[in-house]
Order: sequence, then C-alpha cells, then structure tokens
Amino acid sequence: MAIIESVRWSPEGDAVRIIDQTQLPSRFAERDLRSIDDVCQAIVGLAVRGAPAIGIAAAMGLVTSLLPFAHDSRESFDARLREHAARIRATRPTAVNLPGALDRMTARATRTRGDVAEVLAALRTEATAILEEDRVMCRRIGEHGLPLIADGASVLTHCNAGALATGGIGTALAPIYLAHEVGRRVHVFVDETRPMLQGSRLTAWELARAGIGVTVIADSAAASLMRAGAIDLCLVGADRIAANGDVANKIGTYAVALAAQHHGIPFYVAAPTSTLDPSLPNGDAIPIERRSPAELARLTDTRLTPDGVGIDNPAFDVTPAEMVTGIVTDQGVYGRPYDFKGARGARGARGAAPSATWTTSTTSTT
Amino acid sequence: MAIIESVRWSPEGDAVRIIDQTQLPSRFAERDLRSIDDVCQAIVGLAVRGAPAIGIAAAMGLVTSLLPFAHDSRESFDARLREHAARIRATRPTAVNLPGALDRMTARATRTRGDVAEVLAALRTEATAILEEDRVMCRRIGEHGLPLIADGASVLTHCNAGALATGGIGTALAPIYLAHEVGRRVHVFVDETRPMLQGSRLTAWELARAGIGVTVIADSAAASLMRAGAIDLCLVGADRIAANGDVANKIGTYAVALAAQHHGIPFYVAAPTSTLDPSLPNGDAIPIERRSPAELARLTDTRLTPDGVGIDNPAFDVTPAEMVTGIVTDQGVYGRPYDFKGARGARGARGAAPSATWTTSTTSTT
Repeated sequence: MAIIESVRWSPEGDAVRIIDQTQLPSRFAERDLRSIDDVCQAIVGLAVRGAPAIGIAAAMGLVTSLLPFAHDSRESFDARLREHAARIRATRPTAVNLPGALDRMTARATRTRGDVAEVLAALRTEATAILEEDRVMCRRIGEHGLPLIADGASVLTHCNAGALATGGIGTALAPIYLAHEVGRRVHVFVDETRPMLQGSRLTAWELARAGIGVTVIADSAAASLMRAGAIDLCLVGADRIAANGDVANKIGTYAVALAAQHHGIPFYVAAPTSTLDPSLPNGDAIPIERRSPAELARLTDTRLTPDGVGIDNPAFDVTPAEMVTGIVTDQGVYGRPYDFKGARGARGARGAAPSATWTTSTTSTT
Repeated sequence: MAIIESVRWSPEGDAVRIIDQTQLPSRFAERDLRSIDDVCQAIVGLAVRGAPAIGIAAAMGLVTSLLPFAHDSRESFDARLREHAARIRATRPTAVNLPGALDRMTARATRTRGDVAEVLAALRTEATAILEEDRVMCRRIGEHGLPLIADGASVLTHCNAGALATGGIGTALAPIYLAHEVGRRVHVFVDETRPMLQGSRLTAWELARAGIGVTVIADSAAASLMRAGAIDLCLVGADRIAANGDVANKIGTYAVALAAQHHGIPFYVAAPTSTLDPSLPNGDAIPIERRSPAELARLTDTRLTPDGVGIDNPAFDVTPAEMVTGIVTDQGVYGRPYDFKGARGARGARGAAPSATWTTSTTSTT
C-alpha cells in the first residue's frame, strides 16, 4: 500500500514539505514551509492539520525557521527559539500534540550543551524522532484496532484521522487500512464534516486512493443511517483526551457518539498516547477553539449566510468518557473506566512504565 | 411585520410569482412560472420549496400550465389536466401537501360541470383557496405555538419552515414571529442544514429581515450546544406526519430530536393539518426522497468530494413519535400518544369533526 506522506523533510532538509490540504480534493499539491510565518500560516490555515501532523509540522517547522539564525550567539539563538516556539504554540489551542511536541523540542535544546550548530542538529534529530515515532504509533494503533474491523464491516468516521492527519497511516483510519491490507472487506461512511469538509475532501480522497469503498454523507444523515442499521462501528480520532477519558475531537463527534449510544453501536476513539493529557482531570478543562465565522459564511466566492447574522463556529466538542466504548492507542485498547496512569508518551507522564490496569479488549466489536 | 410572500399570483393572474430561493441570500429575485416545465423545474430545483409552499405552487402552477388549453374540448382539457397533475405530482415524493393539493384540484375539476372556462375558473378558485387557507393555518399555528416561546427563549430550528416555505408566516417559525410581534425576546439558533443550506441561506435571511436575533451553526454543533445548556426548545417543521405521529422532515431532524431527548430539551414539530397523513400507519411507510449526489459533491464551481467515491444523499429522515414532545397544528397542539382522528384538513379525513381526544398542552415548554 503506497501511503502518502503528509509531512516530511524536503530533500535538502531546509524545508518541511507538506501536502497542502486546502487544495484537496481538486488538486494534489505539495508545499515547502521554511520561515516561522510559513509554518504558522500553514497550521492556522489548515494546510497541515490533524493533531499528530500538527505536532510533527510544529517540531520540524521550528527547526527550519531557526536555520537562518545558525550563526547567532547561543544566547540570541535560544531567545529566538523561545519566540518561535511561542508563536507556533499559539496557532491552535485544542490539540495537545502541538504543545507536547514543542515542549520536547525546547527541552532538547535546553539539555544540549555546545554551540548553535550542535543545538540545531539536536533539534533536527528530535523533530525527526517525533515524525518517526508517529509513524510507528500509527501502525501500532492499526494493529491494536484491527480486531475491531470484522470482514464486511461498515464503519462510520468523522473528520479526517488518516494519513493526512499524521506522519503515518493515521489513527482512526489505521485499523481500516490494515483490515484492507489483510483482505477484509470494509466500507467506510464518511461524514462530510462541516464547515471545513475534512471528511468529504480528505478522508474520502485518501481512502478512495487506497482502493477502500467510501460513501460520503451529510453529517446530519449519520444518525438516521445508524437507525437504519447501516453502521456496525464508529471510529474517530482525537485532539486531546483528558485523564478521565473525555475526548475532544472535531465538532460533531459528540453528536456521532450520542447517536451511536442510542443505537447500541460501538463508538471507538483512536489516538496515540501523545494525545492523552493526564494534566486535565476532565473534558471541561480542554480549551475549545472557536474559528472564524467566515468558514460557515462563505465557500470560496459563494455566500452561504446573509449579512448581519451571528455565526458560532466551535471547531471541537467534548465527548464524555461514558459514551466512548474504547480508546485505541499505540499501547493497546483502553476500556471504561479509563485510567491512563503510566501510559508511556502521555504528556507529563513520559517514560513511566505502562500500567497493568488498562484493559485490552480488542477481541470483539459488539 | 412585513411578511414576504413566497408564492402568489402575478398581477395579471397568468403566472405563479415565486421568490427564487436558489438565489438567496445573495440576491432577492422573483420568478414567474407559467408552463408545466416551469412549474416542475422550479419544484425539483428547489426554487420553491417547503411542504406547504410546494402544495400551493403545485395547485397554482397547475392552473397557469392549463391556460394555453382554454380552447380545447372538455375531454381533451381533462386529459391534459391529468397529465399535468401527474407530472407535478412526480416532482418530489416526500411531502404529503403536494399530492394533497393536486387531489383537491382534480376533485374540484371532476365535480365542476360545464365548459373548460368554467373548469379553469373553478381551478383558480381552488388554488387561491389553498393559498389563503395556508396563510390562515400558519397564523393559527403561530397562535397555538406562542405559549411555547417564553420571553428570553433560545430556540433551535433546522432547515426552513418559515415564510419562505409557506404561503404565510411559516410553520415552525410562526410562533417565533408572533413571540417577536408581542415583544418577547427570542433568539434562534439555526442549523445550516446541509447539503442545500436552507438554514443558513433562508431561515437566517428571513428571521434577520424581521429583526429577530439569529446564530447560524453547523448542523453537527447542535448537540454540543444543547449539552452546554444554550438551547431551551427545538422547533422544526414537517413534510409528512404518519397516523402514529412519526414525522418525516429534512435530513438531520432525527439527529436534533435524539440530542434533544438526551438533554431533556422539548422537541416540537409545527405543521398544518394538511401535513398529517392518516393513511400511513407509521413513518416506515413514508417515501424518502434521495436527491442528486451533486448536492454534496459540488458547491457552485467548487468540488467538495474526489472523483469515484460514493455519495448517499437522503433528503429527509423520520423522527419516531416517542421523541416528539408535541405537534403544533392549526387546530391545537397534539401530545403523545398521537391520535389525529377527526383532524380537519388531514389528507383523507377532510371535513370530519375535530376529535375530542387530542391534547392541547400549550401552556409549558418544560
């Protein structure tokens, strides 16, 4: 399976090469990010998006944005690094992978002795590690989630938690890619995901490219499809998961979870452990980004709303842990009640031994 | 309050003058329908839409489409009438008002003795009656629904069941217009209503024009707004209501009802008794229109989905009666369990005395 690479180094290593997701599905175009403005604008403008991909692009973009300052004094370089990290950190508030990746980068710089060249080399190594770890994590999520996808399964997903959202084969889509790889028939119903249409533009694109059957639906059709018995399983990604298992993900995820619960359909979240944020007791503490009303008011040149009306455009919502059947991570599948203590890779819990308390219940989808 | 007229006779009476809803909110444009092709195309293309407005436009359009045949023999005219009625009837399958209005028109023709001029005059009278009865029904729905709208209420609506969808002040929006008229503060959260955006394009437009506060949201944000306590009441229209109270309405209505039920928020449907279809025992028997995939695949020139992916585009869904708190009609508010026997105006039950069994519970929203 030829997996797309949504974020990688340019051949010369002087740029972050991304697939420009704002151009899909009409055009497949790559874009090289170099300066701090490039990097911030690409994240804010959703050219690169998806919690893991944002973390990776942030780390790699921090490196390329600092290349012009290779001949500064160490003190001046460190100040520049803090400034760039702060600017990138401020681009989007909800996904924990962004501050997580930047914390790793600044910690690496802090503990690196020597001149600026040595710091830059260490930062490049750290950013590359974040990218490569993400690839590995995606595949592990796929393997842990594979038993959820029965042959002939119809899976509903929301937004894009696929290869475009990560450095690898995705989070929510990873088990689907692996199921397809091992020959299981799987069909994916894709919520179009207003307002930015990550489902119809991105998820449909990458699944169809991989030869997997796709049906795009309006977000509001998901509940009645479930009522009609067309969906066996819901599988979505996450931008941040609180200590109690509450999940922040793309706006509309909560509505999917609610409908799944009502119809007795399993609702799984797939995310790397880097998406866990044990520092937050529950979802109420997760900051929810409100994006520009323009996303609902216009599509390219077409006006969708009249002048003078209010628009509320929260980009994320929080699904309470009790509505989440399980959380598929690179370290296994957690079940209710959620307890992530000891998960390696969780923000603020790095390096701890995996706890024996978490449940691996990957054997059944029903 | 200057109420727009979405469907009316042209000054010369030779055309049906409609507000072309495909042009809103960018442009307010009226359009005259004369021929059978004009009428069918306007209904199929959603230039005129909303269950009551479709019935009115069908009846009036039947008249204008027959004007060129005023000098035919009665036999030839009657054949033409049957042909035109069949063509208009086939435009859209879900709303019951369409066949209801056409049945009234053909019955009126059948019982009219005399020459073609007399039949045409009778048909014009019948079509005008359907329009005027709808205006009266809208206002009555508003009056019966008014007690549901407390001062300061936040109401969520889906799609457009307003003045644009009827001959009068709407169905779901009628109580809101009247609440505003009597000085109650009311704020309306409007689901944008993919794929055709009747909420953001039409409902937001007509409410803002009337000076009522509007906030447009993505359909998928409604559930989390309810979770946040921002919604006091849901109020939507209907395209067909079965004998047991199951309600067919715009795709996404079921998802709103489900979220309302989960959060203990009242969910009301407003519709004229002409929307009741006692001939269908329950919602499973309501035909659900599947519209063109193009509605999800493109917006004007912008491609929203990649080539080669499936698209499912049901235009309506069915909300089970047990999720509907009450049904506001021109004859009062029905409560659970629903029993419409004897409702005047219901298709197949015209002229019967109102039953004493239906509940009028308009006194409380909680």
